[in-house]
Amino acid sequence: MTTHEADTPVSPEVRAAYAYLGAVTERSTAQVWDLVDAVGPLEAAARIRSGRVDDEVAGQTAARRHRVDPRELAERAAEVGARLLVPGDPGWPAVALEPLDRPRRLRRGGTGGVETALRPFGLWWRGPAHPADVLERSVAVVGTRAPTAYGRAVTADLSAGVAVEGFTVISGGAFGIDAAAHRAVLGAGGTTVAILAGGVDRLYPRGNEALLGAVAETGAVVSDQPPGTGVTRYRFLDRNRLIAALTPATLVVEAAARSGALSTATWARVLGRPVGVVPGPITSVSSVGTHLLARERDATLVTRTADLVELAGSMGETAVPPSGGATSWDGLDDTTRRVLEALPTTGGAAPAEVAASAGIAPGITRAVLGRLLGAGVVSRGPQGWRRTGDGGQQLTLPAT
Amino acid sequence: MTTHEADTPVSPEVRAAYAYLGAVTERSTAQVWDLVDAVGPLEAAARIRSGRVDDEVAGQTAARRHRVDPRELAERAAEVGARLLVPGDPGWPAVALEPLDRPRRLRRGGTGGVETALRPFGLWWRGPAHPADVLERSVAVVGTRAPTAYGRAVTADLSAGVAVEGFTVISGGAFGIDAAAHRAVLGAGGTTVAILAGGVDRLYPRGNEALLGAVAETGAVVSDQPPGTGVTRYRFLDRNRLIAALTPATLVVEAAARSGALSTATWARVLGRPVGVVPGPITSVSSVGTHLLARERDATLVTRTADLVELAGSMGETAVPPSGGATSWDGLDDTTRRVLEALPTTGGAAPAEVAASAGIAPGITRAVLGRLLGAGVVSRGPQGWRRTGDGGQQLTLPAT
Repeated sequence: MTTHEADTPVSPEVRAAYAYLGAVTERSTAQVWDLVDAVGPLEAAARIRSGRVDDEVAGQTAARRHRVDPRELAERAAEVGARLLVPGDPGWPAVALEPLDRPRRLRRGGTGGVETALRPFGLWWRGPAHPADVLERSVAVVGTRAPTAYGRAVTADLSAGVAVEGFTVISGGAFGIDAAAHRAVLGAGGTTVAILAGGVDRLYPRGNEALLGAVAETGAVVSDQPPGTGVTRYRFLDRNRLIAALTPATLVVEAAARSGALSTATWARVLGRPVGVVPGPITSVSSVGTHLLARERDATLVTRTADLVELAGSMGETAVPPSGGATSWDGLDDTTRRVLEALPTTGGAAPAEVAASAGIAPGITRAVLGRLLGAGVVSRGPQGWRRTGDGGQQLTLPAT
Repeated sequence: MTTHEADTPVSPEVRAAYAYLGAVTERSTAQVWDLVDAVGPLEAAARIRSGRVDDEVAGQTAARRHRVDPRELAERAAEVGARLLVPGDPGWPAVALEPLDRPRRLRRGGTGGVETALRPFGLWWRGPAHPADVLERSVAVVGTRAPTAYGRAVTADLSAGVAVEGFTVISGGAFGIDAAAHRAVLGAGGTTVAILAGGVDRLYPRGNEALLGAVAETGAVVSDQPPGTGVTRYRFLDRNRLIAALTPATLVVEAAARSGALSTATWARVLGRPVGVVPGPITSVSSVGTHLLARERDATLVTRTADLVELAGSMGETAVPPSGGATSWDGLDDTTRRVLEALPTTGGAAPAEVAASAGIAPGITRAVLGRLLGAGVVSRGPQGWRRTGDGGQQLTLPAT
């Protein structure tokens, strides 16, 4: 899961350039990324600082180009024990973040048309947890800031349960469901990571300062905004994209009809990651949003820890054999293997049939099928989905 | 929705023959139906009575062939104001019951291989409600005999709500959810029908006798078992097939992991009817079965009356224009029209995309697509589902 750059340590100059790029832009824009891709981060930072850029980039960076000092940012970070993780670093989640670059690649012309924040230029990382270790086996647990007693209780049960199974629980550090998730994982001796909308030196909200301090001491507090940054409404929304992108699956425990947690779920869906929801009483306003996700957006019901493990595990990195590599089923997780086993090799089957045959939730089955399609292991035809074995022997099941 | 036989009134002899056939067999078997189809109900009844039948039919009818007296059954029925509805009668739900004949038609050879009860030979009908009126716009509401207070409350709300919308609520007359559904509809002045596992002269369970009496006075109490029949475990299971078959959709409000309501839901699924479930707390054992249906069998979450109307309405008889008939969209219900509008006319779309675009739950969208496919209005190709307009003008939307 490392990139080729990982063999060469990132130089202090490049790291400072990424720090500059992340801080000089309010959002990671398509235009600045185009510039970075064209001339590299060092030269891109230098041109922005000196104003030798086109009008669009100039417009996006003029307000701060003279004011951002990477050294000062690094010092502020060091004061709270944080560092900046950048592309090329070991543990940089390049694969996880890649879909955030899609809107840029899909642009028709060379300019405009991207309204959302893209891949971050870096992640400020405060805490002992190693990025690669925690992000590859993790799940996001999010929800309303005003949960019911039921919502708090099931958040605690599911978060502690999945932490004991070795998953990092990622959330947003907010009151309510987020805090219940972080707290339960800490209590269970697991690893939890809070992704903040502001700087990692400003533990927000204040009421959770002690909790987030404990998260930073054992797991990590993370942000793509530089130290010293306060929170705004759109920074919360941009932050939600990172929660969705950095985890293989997102669970929404409770959410009202309009809730930030729904924005995280929308991001997860856009990024092709499965979304789980905890059902609740239909008489509870705190479950209106989760039921909406299940009804209208095919989110999968999560009713116990095993469901959550399945949700997150189904998108795990070992789920699909690398294309061109070994096609033995040995390395596959249980969910993927069951979906593959349920597929016919001739004709085809509808996802619902495959789901029923495999005993895997339909939403997860479709997600797995999508990934298997990308890996070239299955195909979709007029009759439905089927397995496209590259030779029977290679697809022989290992004895269980 | 009437058959051609409806023009000719069913003779008393034919009605008596069906009464005999229904009572002489414990279950409506493939072999007896084959005989009826071959020689007609009168001759089939005569042959069975005299023993001039093959070994299989003989085995299925020997125990009762001399003991069943249709006249006596009719008298017993008349005592409680009931009558026998048979194939050919106005209001006989031929279309609704047709899928119950599928297992027989799918038999490889001519004998054996059908383990489930098939189409009934008749329906004993006790109550003023007219069969055609109530069955064509109805929904089944079923669930555990041991519900929570939450389950009872939402059953009452949803049942009364859908009754006010003009739907007949059909259930099984049992304690718990069934009783709550019947009671709420009676209270709302709506029409409710109880389908029993035993005879309509034996209102079972005894504790619900007064309630079922009220149902019989305003709606109907119905059974395919003749008057005088007591209940057995497998009669409950056979009865569940009728609840599922006689309604366009089935709602399960609360159900434990093993619950009779799950068997009704399984029948509904087998018959191609949408299944809805009410979500509840994951901490409640009474919601384990409903969550299972949603997770593993694509049941649709129902959280309010409008969801239930959509579930039942999506399979309404006006949903698809008759093949070869008019293709104007005027006669379509709202759900079907929205699904059609969401379909591309070139390329194709996945059901999930169609569902999202139409704002209709994925489970319902798939059910509608299946029916539209059967009607030849849509097609499914390698790129997904699309509309197959028979000329643009005919598919022009009416102004709304």
